[in-house]
Order: sequence, then structure tokens, then C-alpha cells
Amino acid sequence: MTEPAWKSPTDARAEFRGGLRVPTAGWCAGWTQANLIAVPRALAYDMLLYAQRNPRPCPVLDVSDPGVVSTRLFGGDLRTDLPAYRIFERGELVGEVADARAVWRDDLVAFLIGCSFTFEAALAEAGVTLRHQEMGVNVPMYRTSLRTLPAGRLGGPLVVSMRPVPASLVATAVKVTARYPAVHGAPVHVGDPRTIGVTDLDAPDFGDPVEVRPGELPVFWACGVTPQAAVMESKPDFAIGHAPGHMGITDARDSEYLVP
Amino acid sequence: MTEPAWKSPTDARAEFRGGLRVPTAGWCAGWTQANLIAVPRALAYDMLLYAQRNPRPCPVLDVSDPGVVSTRLFGGDLRTDLPAYRIFERGELVGEVADARAVWRDDLVAFLIGCSFTFEAALAEAGVTLRHQEMGVNVPMYRTSLRTLPAGRLGGPLVVSMRPVPASLVATAVKVTARYPAVHGAPVHVGDPRTIGVTDLDAPDFGDPVEVRPGELPVFWACGVTPQAAVMESKPDFAIGHAPGHMGITDARDSEYLVP
Repeated sequence: MTEPAWKSPTDARAEFRGGLRVPTAGWCAGWTQANLIAVPRALAYDMLLYAQRNPRPCPVLDVSDPGVVSTRLFGGDLRTDLPAYRIFERGELVGEVADARAVWRDDLVAFLIGCSFTFEAALAEAGVTLRHQEMGVNVPMYRTSLRTLPAGRLGGPLVVSMRPVPASLVATAVKVTARYPAVHGAPVHVGDPRTIGVTDLDAPDFGDPVEVRPGELPVFWACGVTPQAAVMESKPDFAIGHAPGHMGITDARDSEYLVP
Repeated sequence: MTEPAWKSPTDARAEFRGGLRVPTAGWCAGWTQANLIAVPRALAYDMLLYAQRNPRPCPVLDVSDPGVVSTRLFGGDLRTDLPAYRIFERGELVGEVADARAVWRDDLVAFLIGCSFTFEAALAEAGVTLRHQEMGVNVPMYRTSLRTLPAGRLGGPLVVSMRPVPASLVATAVKVTARYPAVHGAPVHVGDPRTIGVTDLDAPDFGDPVEVRPGELPVFWACGVTPQAAVMESKPDFAIGHAPGHMGITDARDSEYLVP
């Protein structure tokens, strides 16, 4: 069987459509992964404006037209081809499903938002070990005390992902990821998590905890789960997101998002 | 009197509010200039999505809230503080005015879109003479045969600005402007204008013609007049744009849009 890293987006999406439910870090090397947030057309302007005002956590890669379940960048079926989905009603998480067809609505507009998994290969090449991949778990993600800029009915906290980085490689990690502004870019914070309102690294709000070893600093990147946190706080009638860490794998190449 | 290049955005906007009507190339060195397109709230989603799908011509710097006539980046009054405005009804240019208060509507959403004037200082520093500034005229702009990606009710041709560049400096001009992706970035075309459907360089669709001297190539950058061309083609009920070349001068620094 092909290793996840060497699968094509088409094959990976077929496996997820068939029911496989795993975090996608390390899958489909070289292919861009994306966060999903789908909202009714009546809320789509607010969501797109929210993303425009918060480009670090919400870099929009693509937007579906209402009633269409694929996009230019995503050749699969947005309702089935991610490993898992989260359903929100009035801001409450009411379910997590592997197939969203039963709850998908014709008026939904789907936003594909850049994901930091895209620069993980470049980090690894630069010598930064990805602890969550090493441990075989989901990347840890945290709600911070930093606020995003609101737009219309949407507002909420900044969500970040965290990777431990040896002190000697922090500058490298910054430089490598700064070259990918369309997938969150450089870190938003390095070091003491309390400064950004994260009190316990071992209790992430999304994903799994990972070990931060002596000599390592926790490094935080803006995260595409931020729109889901806005949905939870702002309580629109209905929204569907990906299960954090369980991304949509697109037909776009990581290299397209690399700044020269 | 202070030279235009050394004026502050506040002072420049006050002069335009007072009635001065000139192209703004070379004004307020170091301060970011912006294209304006304002449309009714009912069309705002289509316009924002059109911009998202066409980031080269339509990099969105800021968006106003309906009923508000300034934005985070633009401290002045959007209805009066640009040198001149164009009014469109059902896609027809029905007037050009220096003060848009009489026609501004409460439901308008204003989009500020990056302008290539932002990288002109960097071009000049790199040794590229800006012919339109040298000649004291407006930069020439052309409708091309290249199509933008449509969004909702909006679609149209790509509009470009043109600057003549000595052959030996074309690579420099590409490198310098590529570092400003938020204000159109690298050229979309170098050389023969007919390839992009421009048949007569001496007859620009907007702005003024400039001389292309022996040994120079015409170099074309995506232009923020593109949304006005979409309005002209798609014929929404109502829109207001800046008069081409007569930009909004913002309180943002050019350096904020420079990729490291």
C-alpha cells in the first residue's frame, strides 16, 4: 500500500470518502491542504470579509459557488472527501460526522482556507522535527486571548497551532514559514504561552498535546480553525467545518504558495 | 509650498477635498495609494469574491462597513478626499465629479484596492525612470483581451497599467515589483502589446499615452481599474469608482506591503 505521504489527492480523498478518519498531517507531500468552513449564503459576505480582515489565520484559497460541492482547487466532493466534519447549530457543536451529505444545504458557501500543514515539509527539510508527526498524533491547537478583527456578525479569538522548536532553529522556522504567507506565514508568537492566554500546553482546545523538550520553545502559528471559533462565539444559525487536523486535500501544489 | 512627494496623507486629502484634481502618482512618498470601488451592499459579496478570485488586479487592502465613509486604513472621508470620482449607472459612466457626497448612498460598501503607484518609488530607486511622472501625465491603462475569473454577477477584462522599461532593466523591474504582491506584484506581460489584445499603445483606455523609446519594452502590470471594467461590462445598478490615476491616499505605509 502507498504510504500516505506519496498518495495523490484523488486517492486520499477516495479513502476519506470510503470512511477513513485520520489527521492529514504528512499526507500527500507537495499538495496543499485546506481548512473548511461552510456557511449559508446569507452569512457568506460576513465570512469572506472576516477572512479579508484577518489574513493571518484566514487566508482564503478558494470559495465555492452556492449549490456546488467542489471548487477550482478541490476536485472532490466537499461533503464527503474530508476525513471528518463538525456541525454547528447556533454556535453549538452538535455533531462530528465522516459524511456531511445528510446535513449539507444547497445554500451553503464553502471557504477553503490555507493550512499550516502546507509548510511542514519545508520545516522538516530545514531540520525542524515535527513532534506531532513523530508521535503520530494531531497537531495541538489553542484558543488564545488575542482577538481577531470582527466583520458583520462574526468575531472571536485567534486560534493557533503549536510546534516545539529547538531554540537554535527558531529563526530558521520563522524564515521558512514567512515564505508561505498564504498558509499562515511566520509565527504569531514564540515562547511563553501565557502571554497569549494559553495556560496549559498539555490541554489543547483542539488536537492532541505534544511534548515540549528541554531546549525547545513552543512556537505558535495562526490557525485555520479560527473561523470555527468565530462561529462558536458568534452563533450563526448553521455552519459546517472540518474536524480540526482532518483537512481537505486540494489539487493545488504547495509550491504555488511559496513566495519567491 | 511642500512638494507633493513630501506631503502627508492628511494634507493631501485636505487639498483634494478642497477641489484639487490631479493624478496622484508621485504624491506622498512612502504612503500607500489605493483604487476605490464602491457598490451597494447587495452586490458587495460578489465584489469581494471577484477580488478574491482575481488577486493580481484586485488585491483588497480594506473594506468599509455600510454607512461608514472611512476605513481603518483611510482616515479621511471616502466621498470627498480623492481627487475625482466616476459614477456608474447600469454600467454606464454617467459622470465624473470631484465631490461624491451628492450621489453617495448609505448602503454603499467601499473597497480599497492596492495600486501600482505603491511600488513606483522602489522602481525609481532601482533605476527605472517612470515616464508618466517624468512627462507629468497620468499613467496609461489599457483594457486587455485577458479575462478575469467571474464571481456572481461580476466579470470582465483584465485592465493593465504600462510603464516603458529599458531592456536591460526588465529583470530588475520584475524582481522589484514581485516583492509587492499586495499591490499587483510582478508584471502580467512584457513586450508585444498585441499578445494581450492592446492594439495601439498611443490610445490608452484610461490615463494618458507615454513615449516608448528605442531600446525600451512596454511592461504591463495588473491594474486596480479592473473592477470598474467589470462594472462597465456587468452593468450593476450603481457603483462609484475613483477617476483612474486619481487615487485615495491611505494612512498605510508602502513598507507594510513589502514581502521580506
